Amino acid sequence: MLIIGERINSSRQTINQAIKNQDAEFIRAEARAQAKAGAHYIDINAGSFVGQETEYLCWLAEVVQEVTDLPLSLDSPNADAVAAALEIVKGPAIINSISLESRRLAGMLPLIKKYKSKVVALCQSDEVMAATADSKVNIARQIITLLTGEGVPIRDIYIDPLVYPVATEGQSARNVLQAIERIMGLIPGVHTICGLTNISYGLPARRLLNRTFLVAAMSHGLDAAIIDPTDRELMASLTAAEALLGQDEFCARYIKAYREGKLT
Amino acid sequence: MLIIGERINSSRQTINQAIKNQDAEFIRAEARAQAKAGAHYIDINAGSFVGQETEYLCWLAEVVQEVTDLPLSLDSPNADAVAAALEIVKGPAIINSISLESRRLAGMLPLIKKYKSKVVALCQSDEVMAATADSKVNIARQIITLLTGEGVPIRDIYIDPLVYPVATEGQSARNVLQAIERIMGLIPGVHTICGLTNISYGLPARRLLNRTFLVAAMSHGLDAAIIDPTDRELMASLTAAEALLGQDEFCARYIKAYREGKLT
Repeated sequence: MLIIGERINSSRQTINQAIKNQDAEFIRAEARAQAKAGAHYIDINAGSFVGQETEYLCWLAEVVQEVTDLPLSLDSPNADAVAAALEIVKGPAIINSISLESRRLAGMLPLIKKYKSKVVALCQSDEVMAATADSKVNIARQIITLLTGEGVPIRDIYIDPLVYPVATEGQSARNVLQAIERIMGLIPGVHTICGLTNISYGLPARRLLNRTFLVAAMSHGLDAAIIDPTDRELMASLTAAEALLGQDEFCARYIKAYREGKLT
Repeated sequence: MLIIGERINSSRQTINQAIKNQDAEFIRAEARAQAKAGAHYIDINAGSFVGQETEYLCWLAEVVQEVTDLPLSLDSPNADAVAAALEIVKGPAIINSISLESRRLAGMLPLIKKYKSKVVALCQSDEVMAATADSKVNIARQIITLLTGEGVPIRDIYIDPLVYPVATEGQSARNVLQAIERIMGLIPGVHTICGLTNISYGLPARRLLNRTFLVAAMSHGLDAAIIDPTDRELMASLTAAEALLGQDEFCARYIKAYREGKLT
């Protein structure tokens, strides 16, 4: 399971404040904590700062790279900001995100190819925010065809089926689970990825719903997630699901996590 | 989700002792606690007492029925014990369990028909303890054909795909998940049921693995489980999974459970 640590996001109040104050040490601590907790990528987002997004995204990239060698997830629909960040990012990055929206795609595609970036692709086009499983799979198929046609390796593509709150759309989680299973079957090597927090929007005990949804999604084939790796119970659920789903040989990582006191 | 409360089982030390001592109040307290925690059936098992199983199973049935109107799950492969218990059980019961093993079946089939009992049927025959998904589905199909041919309504049949420890058989959970999905698709109205505790045998933090497995199984269609309903975290996971899977209109039960302090 590929884990993208989601905490350094300007929509969060504390991060927003830290960016505004150029509090590098606060950002560094967030990066270190997520690396220690098991993140494979560190997501950075400065989208709340219209007009200054490019400047702040680059600042975040620099600051995070001071304390970890983990690759970055560049979280922006803005090709100019992503282009500037890619200039200073050391290793390969993941671009989070593109979609079939033509304007968004036109700016990002040259970057994906130039920097051989991995890419998160949302099941979303100019006309459609995919809600049904059929619609999600349809758009996924179009994105995969387009990206592989441009020479992007299938293993670099992470399809995000879009998650809507179950409080307002009761079949939302079911549609995502079905879509994940069908997208993973479209072509060997493709990945699926989700953020979790949308699913529980408007309901209480959200962390319980989020980790329950993660387990269900993993059992349907989800192999990447944008999550908070410092959420102890979430990571325990993820570790248990990997052991159950045959993704942890001899349950070795599960037993190690138990010995380190991470499961109870 | 149908919940069969598993606690009154003679393989548990405290229950074994209570049966031996004919401590009716201890058994009553276990029945009451499970009813309060949300069980729909109370399972009773006296299988540890060879030679006295019939006597003790009937005693358990009487004692439990003193404190709850919930129906009973008669947990025995012994047709004589089940027959005697059915004589004193007030309402409809569930027989737990039969299989395709010819001796077991020969004794139980007349009881199922006479008492219009529901029945748990294991994916197991004289020759096979089904391990692969194909083998589980095959035996399930044979059992369903046989039972419906005898006039048992499909809605009264609960197929148990058999769960083996993931510690010794890494694909065990995956096989069960696939089997559940395929069995639920065989014929509308059929049910699937699991015990959970086998899955985690030999591993630490077993309750975490059990509830993680329950969520994955529910997301593949499992609609009944033999569990300990007094396990608070297990029930929270179950309640969250029902909300996510569209089995809890407007998430009303989930919100009620939250208000009652059951989710955190």
